[in-house]
Amino acid sequence: MSLRTKDLLGIQGMTGDEIRLILDTAATFKEVSARDIKKVPTLRGKTVINLFYEASTRTRTSFELAGKRLSADVINISTSTSSVVKGETLIDTAKNIEAMKTDMIIIRHPCSGAAHFLATRLNSAVINAGDGFHEHPTQALLDMFTIREKLVKLDGLTVTIAGDIAHSRVARSNIYGLAMMGATVRVCAPPTMMPQGIERLGAKVYFDMDKAVEGADVVMMLRLQLERQAGGLFPGVREYARLYGLNQSRLGRAAKHALVMHPGPMNRGVEISSDVADNTPVILDQVTNGVAVRMAVMFLLSGGTKAEA
Amino acid sequence: MSLRTKDLLGIQGMTGDEIRLILDTAATFKEVSARDIKKVPTLRGKTVINLFYEASTRTRTSFELAGKRLSADVINISTSTSSVVKGETLIDTAKNIEAMKTDMIIIRHPCSGAAHFLATRLNSAVINAGDGFHEHPTQALLDMFTIREKLVKLDGLTVTIAGDIAHSRVARSNIYGLAMMGATVRVCAPPTMMPQGIERLGAKVYFDMDKAVEGADVVMMLRLQLERQAGGLFPGVREYARLYGLNQSRLGRAAKHALVMHPGPMNRGVEISSDVADNTPVILDQVTNGVAVRMAVMFLLSGGTKAEA
Amino acid sequence: MSLRTKDLLGIQGMTGDEIRLILDTAATFKEVSARDIKKVPTLRGKTVINLFYEASTRTRTSFELAGKRLSADVINISTSTSSVVKGETLIDTAKNIEAMKTDMIIIRHPCSGAAHFLATRLNSAVINAGDGFHEHPTQALLDMFTIREKLVKLDGLTVTIAGDIAHSRVARSNIYGLAMMGATVRVCAPPTMMPQGIERLGAKVYFDMDKAVEGADVVMMLRLQLERQAGGLFPGVREYARLYGLNQSRLGRAAKHALVMHPGPMNRGVEISSDVADNTPVILDQVTNGVAVRMAVMFLLSGGTKAEA
Repeated sequence: MSLRTKDLLGIQGMTGDEIRLILDTAATFKEVSARDIKKVPTLRGKTVINLFYEASTRTRTSFELAGKRLSADVINISTSTSSVVKGETLIDTAKNIEAMKTDMIIIRHPCSGAAHFLATRLNSAVINAGDGFHEHPTQALLDMFTIREKLVKLDGLTVTIAGDIAHSRVARSNIYGLAMMGATVRVCAPPTMMPQGIERLGAKVYFDMDKAVEGADVVMMLRLQLERQAGGLFPGVREYARLYGLNQSRLGRAAKHALVMHPGPMNRGVEISSDVADNTPVILDQVTNGVAVRMAVMFLLSGGTKAEA
Repeated sequence: MSLRTKDLLGIQGMTGDEIRLILDTAATFKEVSARDIKKVPTLRGKTVINLFYEASTRTRTSFELAGKRLSADVINISTSTSSVVKGETLIDTAKNIEAMKTDMIIIRHPCSGAAHFLATRLNSAVINAGDGFHEHPTQALLDMFTIREKLVKLDGLTVTIAGDIAHSRVARSNIYGLAMMGATVRVCAPPTMMPQGIERLGAKVYFDMDKAVEGADVVMMLRLQLERQAGGLFPGVREYARLYGLNQSRLGRAAKHALVMHPGPMNRGVEISSDVADNTPVILDQVTNGVAVRMAVMFLLSGGTKAEA
Repeated sequence: MSLRTKDLLGIQGMTGDEIRLILDTAATFKEVSARDIKKVPTLRGKTVINLFYEASTRTRTSFELAGKRLSADVINISTSTSSVVKGETLIDTAKNIEAMKTDMIIIRHPCSGAAHFLATRLNSAVINAGDGFHEHPTQALLDMFTIREKLVKLDGLTVTIAGDIAHSRVARSNIYGLAMMGATVRVCAPPTMMPQGIERLGAKVYFDMDKAVEGADVVMMLRLQLERQAGGLFPGVREYARLYGLNQSRLGRAAKHALVMHPGPMNRGVEISSDVADNTPVILDQVTNGVAVRMAVMFLLSGGTKAEA
């Protein structure tokens, strides 16, 4: 089995079989990063572009490492280091890059829909590394991979996602994916950070964090964008921490085996207390699994099948 | 046959045979980028430095890809990402880099003559990736390659170059090269953007765009540096577009088979209308050919001969 | 023989045997950079991270080249190009990077002790590429390598280090190393730039540059951080040059065979006159040797032994 599409743009619209294919393939590639020689010739002679319109060390590095461990030539292009735009349109920039005969373009962009826009206009495989408030599919895939690795399955689990749901592409991608895989998803946020109609994506809405955590198998904390305070979305960091942060006592309400997850970078003392952060190896497992999941996605989009991985 | 010089500094002073050698070699390397595995071991174990004192995503990426597809180790150094200069002279910086045992230094610099200056003082091969208002030889080579590919030959063609001729290293390199290869070169610009004495390089001067385009085989539009308006070189973008921009009706004056070219990035609606831009596959072919031409130049400067390519 | 430690954090605490091991191994690797194909498969499939919290083209490039010539996958992360820190702690950033399964982390950081801090908390080998005013061990190793290469041995030599000793990690690392290897170390600085108690590290203190240079086998000039003038540490550049700069006449006081060294980048006309700078091939030899020493360190920390090099 291989992927139906040339691109990975979002979790919405993916089938359970496709998600399982990626997760199963990632398990194979996770083993590569554990080797003494962390390199396979899979994408040798392929050109992969990391086109980042928003700065992100960890996501860029994760994709770069995934590409290099597959032996691809990886080129980084970012607005912070170069004149990506001198008044040039996004599509002109992308078409120019593709004209250099690229195989894969990984794009992060502040506008929702940017990845879709490029995907329909380019022959290269497009991977969405985060577009506005829309989706961040490889993050959700690595989260699902991590949950499945620790708790064996996704079906039947209760997963609480807490934080600024309204502005989180991580939340959105996870809601789509976890619901598709049979998990019950709870979302918890202050009313100012809860998007209208989120129930229709398959999530249950909570405004009380204690109740949201009650009996959960997984508690996934989102990073609080501190600059949102200026916009009046929350009154203060201490109040936010008290009402919506995860600390040991609140975590006690979750299931005994509950996993604490965070996409990073963490604001210690804000959405997550330091003692919880330090007692949660899962957060680093997410990072490790991110490389494996991205290797799997790049492999599958380049035409690989599970059997070959 | 191989190149006589250790460097590629400009088109001025090159012989027709040298230009043909590069173009012929590029044809061989273009095929590499069309392969499934876009990589040859030609420059394995060689060190190539991209030393950019001006930001330029596309030129830097083109050279980086060319080097990587030849299997060289490519290192990017740019003023925007690092402290290239802490009061250090250009030659001290370059000698320090060369002391790390580099084979090739690709330099872009705002000062005319910077590449020549380094070339006489370094043992590494120096490639001029644009120096001030002086030359940008690989751009002219990729332009000539593209014209020859589409129209079979350069000899006898009429090529119109339009825009800010005075401040364009692309124009200067193309005038030298096209004249050497037997083409008739017309240059067209507002009087404020037309350098004195340009005829002596072998170009015919036009101030009327309609006349400049009349019967041309190739119309090459230059990017308008919008910041020149502050300097009073042109009164407004709309007037510039009307008098010197290329649109469908004006293009109708050129030969039926006329190629529209642009070194990018384009200002749509300024020097080129969007409908002309979208109907001109040649502009992306230029980008594709840029990688091939740069691979050829790097190969030949490293001592390769046409027969080995 | 191999290194006892998993990290290279400083020269302080290293034994003479360890220093000799690195210098002897570097001699082997220097030969690699002199080859036509400058690449060995030693670190193939290993992941090396250049984590730079301070900009430094030459040190970053030297480590990057060392890693690439050993066939490692090298990833650059720097605060100037990306959001290394969005309020995240250093250890969280480093643990996240390590979770991607890195083998070696090279860190430059403005805080003294940053490298030690990471080394005790990470499984990856940590190489200190400069931490605050503390140490810069690979610089001292390349300096000792260069001296030994030119003057056969270190034991019994007189080495003068002149400049802002108080704020120089280069000076500190060299004092430890040279004293350990049996050299006599003189330090010379204006009183405002001389740290208290430096004699206890094994250095003799001078405030008169003429006397400090007298009969020296090596004169090592430090870069003057011109921004220190604002802090009142020296009255003016011209006076500094006159009192503490190295010019031909002052150099005449040193031994006939004396080596002039500088870690770069040089302020010509400040700490070193242009004629001295131009008559000192040793400064570029330092740069060349820097790549060899860093290859040796990376090789030895990855478990290599002298016999295998």
